[in-house]
Amino acid sequence: MAGSTYGTIFKITTWGESHGKGIGVVIDGCPAGLPLCEEDIQTFLDRRKPGQSKFTTPRKEDDKAVILSGVFEGKTTGTPISIVVFNENQRSGDYGEIASCYRPGHADYTFDQKYGFRDYRGGGRSSGRETIGRTAAGAVAVKILNRLGILFTTYTRAIGPVSIDDKCFDAAQILKNPLYMPDAAAAKKAEAYLETCIQDQNSSGGVVECMISGMPAGIGDPVFEKLSANLAKAVMSIGAVKGFEIGDGCSVSKATGRENNDAFRLADDGSVEKATNHSGGILGGISDGSDIVLRASFKPTPSIASLQHTVNRSGEEVDIRIKGRHDPIIVPRAVVVVEAMAAITIVDSLFANMSAQMEAVKKFYET
Amino acid sequence: MAGSTYGTIFKITTWGESHGKGIGVVIDGCPAGLPLCEEDIQTFLDRRKPGQSKFTTPRKEDDKAVILSGVFEGKTTGTPISIVVFNENQRSGDYGEIASCYRPGHADYTFDQKYGFRDYRGGGRSSGRETIGRTAAGAVAVKILNRLGILFTTYTRAIGPVSIDDKCFDAAQILKNPLYMPDAAAAKKAEAYLETCIQDQNSSGGVVECMISGMPAGIGDPVFEKLSANLAKAVMSIGAVKGFEIGDGCSVSKATGRENNDAFRLADDGSVEKATNHSGGILGGISDGSDIVLRASFKPTPSIASLQHTVNRSGEEVDIRIKGRHDPIIVPRAVVVVEAMAAITIVDSLFANMSAQMEAVKKFYET
Amino acid sequence: MAGSTYGTIFKITTWGESHGKGIGVVIDGCPAGLPLCEEDIQTFLDRRKPGQSKFTTPRKEDDKAVILSGVFEGKTTGTPISIVVFNENQRSGDYGEIASCYRPGHADYTFDQKYGFRDYRGGGRSSGRETIGRTAAGAVAVKILNRLGILFTTYTRAIGPVSIDDKCFDAAQILKNPLYMPDAAAAKKAEAYLETCIQDQNSSGGVVECMISGMPAGIGDPVFEKLSANLAKAVMSIGAVKGFEIGDGCSVSKATGRENNDAFRLADDGSVEKATNHSGGILGGISDGSDIVLRASFKPTPSIASLQHTVNRSGEEVDIRIKGRHDPIIVPRAVVVVEAMAAITIVDSLFANMSAQMEAVKKFYET
Amino acid sequence: MAGSTYGTIFKITTWGESHGKGIGVVIDGCPAGLPLCEEDIQTFLDRRKPGQSKFTTPRKEDDKAVILSGVFEGKTTGTPISIVVFNENQRSGDYGEIASCYRPGHADYTFDQKYGFRDYRGGGRSSGRETIGRTAAGAVAVKILNRLGILFTTYTRAIGPVSIDDKCFDAAQILKNPLYMPDAAAAKKAEAYLETCIQDQNSSGGVVECMISGMPAGIGDPVFEKLSANLAKAVMSIGAVKGFEIGDGCSVSKATGRENNDAFRLADDGSVEKATNHSGGILGGISDGSDIVLRASFKPTPSIASLQHTVNRSGEEVDIRIKGRHDPIIVPRAVVVVEAMAAITIVDSLFANMSAQMEAVKKFYET
Repeated sequence: MAGSTYGTIFKITTWGESHGKGIGVVIDGCPAGLPLCEEDIQTFLDRRKPGQSKFTTPRKEDDKAVILSGVFEGKTTGTPISIVVFNENQRSGDYGEIASCYRPGHADYTFDQKYGFRDYRGGGRSSGRETIGRTAAGAVAVKILNRLGILFTTYTRAIGPVSIDDKCFDAAQILKNPLYMPDAAAAKKAEAYLETCIQDQNSSGGVVECMISGMPAGIGDPVFEKLSANLAKAVMSIGAVKGFEIGDGCSVSKATGRENNDAFRLADDGSVEKATNHSGGILGGISDGSDIVLRASFKPTPSIASLQHTVNRSGEEVDIRIKGRHDPIIVPRAVVVVEAMAAITIVDSLFANMSAQMEAVKKFYET
Repeated sequence: MAGSTYGTIFKITTWGESHGKGIGVVIDGCPAGLPLCEEDIQTFLDRRKPGQSKFTTPRKEDDKAVILSGVFEGKTTGTPISIVVFNENQRSGDYGEIASCYRPGHADYTFDQKYGFRDYRGGGRSSGRETIGRTAAGAVAVKILNRLGILFTTYTRAIGPVSIDDKCFDAAQILKNPLYMPDAAAAKKAEAYLETCIQDQNSSGGVVECMISGMPAGIGDPVFEKLSANLAKAVMSIGAVKGFEIGDGCSVSKATGRENNDAFRLADDGSVEKATNHSGGILGGISDGSDIVLRASFKPTPSIASLQHTVNRSGEEVDIRIKGRHDPIIVPRAVVVVEAMAAITIVDSLFANMSAQMEAVKKFYET
Repeated sequence: MAGSTYGTIFKITTWGESHGKGIGVVIDGCPAGLPLCEEDIQTFLDRRKPGQSKFTTPRKEDDKAVILSGVFEGKTTGTPISIVVFNENQRSGDYGEIASCYRPGHADYTFDQKYGFRDYRGGGRSSGRETIGRTAAGAVAVKILNRLGILFTTYTRAIGPVSIDDKCFDAAQILKNPLYMPDAAAAKKAEAYLETCIQDQNSSGGVVECMISGMPAGIGDPVFEKLSANLAKAVMSIGAVKGFEIGDGCSVSKATGRENNDAFRLADDGSVEKATNHSGGILGGISDGSDIVLRASFKPTPSIASLQHTVNRSGEEVDIRIKGRHDPIIVPRAVVVVEAMAAITIVDSLFANMSAQMEAVKKFYET
Repeated sequence: MAGSTYGTIFKITTWGESHGKGIGVVIDGCPAGLPLCEEDIQTFLDRRKPGQSKFTTPRKEDDKAVILSGVFEGKTTGTPISIVVFNENQRSGDYGEIASCYRPGHADYTFDQKYGFRDYRGGGRSSGRETIGRTAAGAVAVKILNRLGILFTTYTRAIGPVSIDDKCFDAAQILKNPLYMPDAAAAKKAEAYLETCIQDQNSSGGVVECMISGMPAGIGDPVFEKLSANLAKAVMSIGAVKGFEIGDGCSVSKATGRENNDAFRLADDGSVEKATNHSGGILGGISDGSDIVLRASFKPTPSIASLQHTVNRSGEEVDIRIKGRHDPIIVPRAVVVVEAMAAITIVDSLFANMSAQMEAVKKFYET
């Protein structure tokens, strides 16, 4: 089944495998008249670029975005924006083991069960490189949202047992450490933790958090298209995410109503605001005007250097040791991907919301 | 925007407000030839029926399902199955406060922001009664899946601070206590905890867990339509859910790769199986043949009897006390709703998967 | 597969069989704040009501629309509008022949091939009564469009060999004859033709035409979601339609470019207009500001009283004579259905168009 | 809005403008295991290639298809197939008039109204080159269908006033004349007619017909997803199509039921067949096992060399003469595009149909 298209009004379609000719995305439903150039895309791609520290794969991937359509004289035309990154740094190498074995924690076995065979080179379609298309589309989505006053702050909240201290939160730190943590002290500790993982031929999980400010209230739908539900799908569709939370998230299960309810009050300008934000900016599936806060829990990189037990395609039990250049942690490079998926989802919700009230539709078409 | 339809090939559309004429669902894409009667639906609706213990609202809601279409001579015809529950026990009463105030933790404010006004009677469309339609559709989905050997075990994992002890897990207990907990001792403790909440005019959150056995490997898609992503959307679209987890869920962030990877091995019958199930039955978005395990964290019932601060529609700060008959906990009645949404999602994935391989399509159309 | 839902942002889902408990529709994505009552729906249903002349079935179908949800205090709430017509006048009768035989020109055989069996009572889901749901939804769509200054004129263009004379076109005549023809003389001739069909135990085809004025230019999309393509699907999804045309329609194949091109010119108010309207109001799939003109060719009622040769479910050749109360022509009752489907399609296109330009989105969210 | 994606389970997304960097398509939902190479695609693209006779533009467009993803070791992998044709033969030229004027019969005006501006180079997204993506996807769809025994015969039925004579129908002729007509004598006449059009600085319309044999009965859905309705949308979404017909098409309006009904009878092998095929292979929206026959009426090429009156972007009336290399007729090059759109639609319907019966689903998952 077709599973590579996401979104309804603002819609993206990704394609490409790790070691094929390229990776790309078609962005459809972008409004006409948005200034856009390849540099806008590149800035986002560079945030997921490997090789920037010892905590990401030393592979050199100079992923260069090329816009093939949908932009004319520096502005989007309203027609599909096709973006491609040609693959350049594939090792032609020996895929023997990946080709014949089911790597634990990977999708090798499930692909074979679904499709009968698979493109085993570098993970094929299940490779992390698939997120290049999402990231490129996210750059467009964030640019649209910024024009509407909606801003993103996305970062690493935790790496293994090391979590940021909210009291030390400093957004300026995010780009100052290779782990994208908004807390310099926590980043230091996390780096030390990752060193031990590497030495131990092991890997670590972690948490990405995304805060979205400037959201108007009233976005999202009350039943299946809850903004929280769509954000959940968007973020859980990123490989390796096993948990998703909005606002207080899983901890609400231990809370009482009195603790968890956010009181409404009047802001100085007379508008309605909430005294707290346990809801994470969404009530009943609809944005409530507070910051949207979401978190994704990533599992540890399944590719580890130590010996693992598994089964091969011939149905024999074997022990394998995964060679190659692998990140000991997925999280830092996934920060921009979480932001991208959240942004794409919110653009779609904003566009869908434009026909929510008859008077607004009437006014729109009268002008 | 249209937000009351869910699913692609197996598709449900719900409608209805808490205190309108009725609540219903249209189930489209159900295969022809499935035996179905109103009793099948009723069994599921009764699992979310209130008034069965002191932990659910004392409202008497004898929700009776009526099948209006799509079934002929005891079998589904392949055309839409329309099911309605007529509302009968609405208090005609005084909605003054709900009508004019924004209840904390509820969708009153966000509805007004989105739509300009709202049907305030009993929560209108954002009422928990909206889940009647989902539950009825879930009954059909579970019946389809049972025919394919796929079975559900869904229960309350935790209520406030009280969690079941996995070592004491006993599925037979689920229907023996009003909280649907598979651990009699934990259920006792949880009941005691809820008593204190009630006395304190407060409410509690909790966790629902769903285990799905008998899933074939290979179901779900590798990118946006990951089975895990669709389950996340399905479950997060239930009111009050703020966190969603698959398998080890949020705890994977603290795990290492060596701990989290599930080794493959050969079962006695020579088939491939996993030695552990940290993945919760899904790898790379595709079912891996192990049990699917998912969890939903529910926030505490926002309607509490104690005094709360808020704002009214006239833009004044006020203190309100929510009257009426409210559950101190959402979780026990939500167990069946989580099961329903998971089942609907899995049916859709199974149907979509039928064209995954060319040879399978060819074989299908040759016979 | 789910095939009873139509539309993307403004979405309808119909359900029900001819002789089941009822027929209905769920309309989702209707903006909040539209005044709506059952009388609005009834007016449309009455236009397809049988028993009004000798040219429609003498069955008395007092189809009464009941709104079950989505309207509060006389206005739409933005949530799904569920409308039902309970079936009341089903003959309990003898379905022996319909049940066991494949009536020529009907869907009996194809339903059996698809689903393995069928609800044979009165045609089941393939009955013309299925259009009740579409018509009810059309009433809502037309009401929305009227508020935006978009008006419909829909009528019978031809019955068998009798076509209206464009020089005699008089919209006031449409409601003055039972055939809904805008030409009194043609209506007389058509009535005479239908009399001969009845006497001959035969039936007639015909053409419905729909003119839509007040359309803004710029609605529709340039590729797959061309307004013309969506109107084609909408209208061809009505039972018995075998041909669809926009503007000059099929006759363009014989035209030359010089004849077919519509010159642009300036209107008195300085706006751009076309000197002619061969395009039928759509250029490149997008509305051009002229009236949209479309036509549907309906086949003759397949239920005729004369003897026909066919096959039964047991695989035997048989001769049958279809009893019962059948219209000698589908067209007059289908006029409102064509209008409904066109209106639903245009509402959806108008809503989708609201995010076509970045500046318009920005302006929308700034206010 | 996103309007460049078509299909549900088998889904295509096209992108690209006439004079941009390239034109492409992403085909998603293609089953794994289909042998596929660039030559398969090229064969289809060559059927729409210009420059092959005096009746198509003398532009040399060596459109070379490159497969960028989704094929591994000669077979489709089940993941998206991205195909691109890089644009090579764009005249860098002077677009002055097209840029500033609204060409009659073209989408210049409607694009400006929708998007505020447009990529005017060679028609941009509304260029006939947009069909390259559809054609490439059609090659894949036809290949799938051929494996299932479903075959296409697509040709020019009429050019201007010259129509083929059904009694002289000879499929072998289709590839023997530049007009793709299955009747050598008609082709000669049509060529002569087109000569006069060219001399007269004029252009001609025409009709494409597509016959699909080997269709199983039971494909398509009874309500909105009628196979006829989806084929209508598919074909009407091709630029310049103004009329669509199934089977007897528009002429059914003049027929009587006795003429139009197809009697069922038993074939020699005992299976059910129809004595005639007025229905064009579809009854009640579902395939009836006979050949599917559909027709598309194309308007004349709007780009003609003679002087035309129009308006420019500055709001002035002007006379223009369209320069450049234009086909005097769209039809011959559109034959393969009609086939492509029909094939894509049928593949999607076949896949959707696989879950129509519970027993078939059960059998599928038991094996």
